[in-house]
Amino acid sequence: MAVARHGREGGRHVETTFVVPLWVDLVAVGVGALQGALFAGRLKERRIDLLGVALIGVVVGLGGGLLRDILLNELPVAMRTNWFLLVAVGAALLGMLLQRLFNRLNALIIALDAVTIGLFAAIGTSKALLVVGVPEIPAIFVGIVSAVGGSILRDVSLNLPIALMHVGSLYAVAAGAGTVLLVALWSFDVDIVIASIACAVVTTVIRLGSV
Amino acid sequence: MAVARHGREGGRHVETTFVVPLWVDLVAVGVGALQGALFAGRLKERRIDLLGVALIGVVVGLGGGLLRDILLNELPVAMRTNWFLLVAVGAALLGMLLQRLFNRLNALIIALDAVTIGLFAAIGTSKALLVVGVPEIPAIFVGIVSAVGGSILRDVSLNLPIALMHVGSLYAVAAGAGTVLLVALWSFDVDIVIASIACAVVTTVIRLGSV
Amino acid sequence: MAVARHGREGGRHVETTFVVPLWVDLVAVGVGALQGALFAGRLKERRIDLLGVALIGVVVGLGGGLLRDILLNELPVAMRTNWFLLVAVGAALLGMLLQRLFNRLNALIIALDAVTIGLFAAIGTSKALLVVGVPEIPAIFVGIVSAVGGSILRDVSLNLPIALMHVGSLYAVAAGAGTVLLVALWSFDVDIVIASIACAVVTTVIRLGSV
Repeated sequence: MAVARHGREGGRHVETTFVVPLWVDLVAVGVGALQGALFAGRLKERRIDLLGVALIGVVVGLGGGLLRDILLNELPVAMRTNWFLLVAVGAALLGMLLQRLFNRLNALIIALDAVTIGLFAAIGTSKALLVVGVPEIPAIFVGIVSAVGGSILRDVSLNLPIALMHVGSLYAVAAGAGTVLLVALWSFDVDIVIASIACAVVTTVIRLGSV
Repeated sequence: MAVARHGREGGRHVETTFVVPLWVDLVAVGVGALQGALFAGRLKERRIDLLGVALIGVVVGLGGGLLRDILLNELPVAMRTNWFLLVAVGAALLGMLLQRLFNRLNALIIALDAVTIGLFAAIGTSKALLVVGVPEIPAIFVGIVSAVGGSILRDVSLNLPIALMHVGSLYAVAAGAGTVLLVALWSFDVDIVIASIACAVVTTVIRLGSV
Repeated sequence: MAVARHGREGGRHVETTFVVPLWVDLVAVGVGALQGALFAGRLKERRIDLLGVALIGVVVGLGGGLLRDILLNELPVAMRTNWFLLVAVGAALLGMLLQRLFNRLNALIIALDAVTIGLFAAIGTSKALLVVGVPEIPAIFVGIVSAVGGSILRDVSLNLPIALMHVGSLYAVAAGAGTVLLVALWSFDVDIVIASIACAVVTTVIRLGSV
């Protein structure tokens, strides 16, 4: 990530050219969409058609980022270029077509999913802090919503109880620990890139440890 | 629809005075709200009261446009004048009061509903392209969300499985075909009004063909 | 509430320094979050963990304000300072820990809840009218959504039928009466502070009368 300047002193709107590399964001979206399609494909008794599976993939892949940008009152990144929707739809269709293959690679998918949550948490919190300039606690909240938003919207779309609400889910705890760390490091003037990487790693490790 | 200038070359925010005639938008909202109230009124076992029926009407009539404008980070049109909410509430109450009459006109309602989806798809995609200046794929996505958003929010509100996710629903396919056509025509420099009408007609016809 | 100037004549964006005192907003958020946590804690068979209870508290406490600000295309107030999230999480945890105590104070909680709905209705409508400058009917709509949004999001989060849709709920009716009164008084040039207090009182009394 490139950051020209912290500039926290400069009022609410911070002058900075903080940019998450597009490919990092797209990898997170793609893995999320793949996961979503695999999840929807396993619900045989729900009679979800191809379109529905693709839609769930898009919801899971893009949901966290959409909620993040709506909370931050920004035009969602998925509206700014063609890439986000193309990657989300492509990954969802891939997940649907290669369902049997991917289900054998379950351990890999779980690992990738944990990395995705870490990336979304780090991207969400650092965007909130640096691009929009919100205070610490809302920045943590935005990071957590970015990380778990896709899975919340998935469960609402499928009319399932939201997994996050029930015993055993450490998604939000993992993202919470990571984003708190990011904000703490940043407030001690650690470089935002290092703080973001620390956030992504901690979130991923906690999530993996809880599987 | 009136458009002063395409101006696609002029950066992200396009300078244009593209305006959907208010009455077109209001007809779409009114038919959507009527449909929503009729749908809610048929769910006898749910014990939905008058207020609930009116609310579902408003959700169905305005939901697509609200989601569209939230995705585009614009003040929703329903917030800009009194007309949208008045028409949505009025149409929902009408649907509720004249339920038995309208249920006999079922064929007419289905036809009007297909027209509504076509209108929302065309309005959503052309607004995304011309007013906000988003790229092609997000514009298609916004058009589809505009067309199906009301019915998605209806199902979530009523705690029903989202119809769109299940085998047999061609709502999203119809809107997808129409909006892809709109974007294709527009990128070949066809006038946006003609492209929008083509989108609305194709969406409506596919939707009618699938009933 | 402090208002420098009505300025309704000055175009869509009204120049005014209307400010709801922060503590009023925070009390409403805190009581909402407490209520939400108590509600979630009573659903024993749902196996909601501590995190889930806290999350429901945050959803109920902040949901109305978030929906209000998203509809108005404003950066949500909960993103502007640390206080909203701190109060919501704190109140939700308090509700969770002191569940048995609060359940004995049921009458007090119901009374506070009615006051909360009144406050949210008044804050939502006056913010819509004065800060964003929307017309009367959308302002009423925003006030109602502010008042009932938390409970709608709670029911969607818990995968319950939305209470509001079913016979017997007077939440929306109470908020509707209060916000219509606010707009009526304001259009007769009554001071917005007095109109807002009248709205809050009427909403609270109708809600209490319907318990």
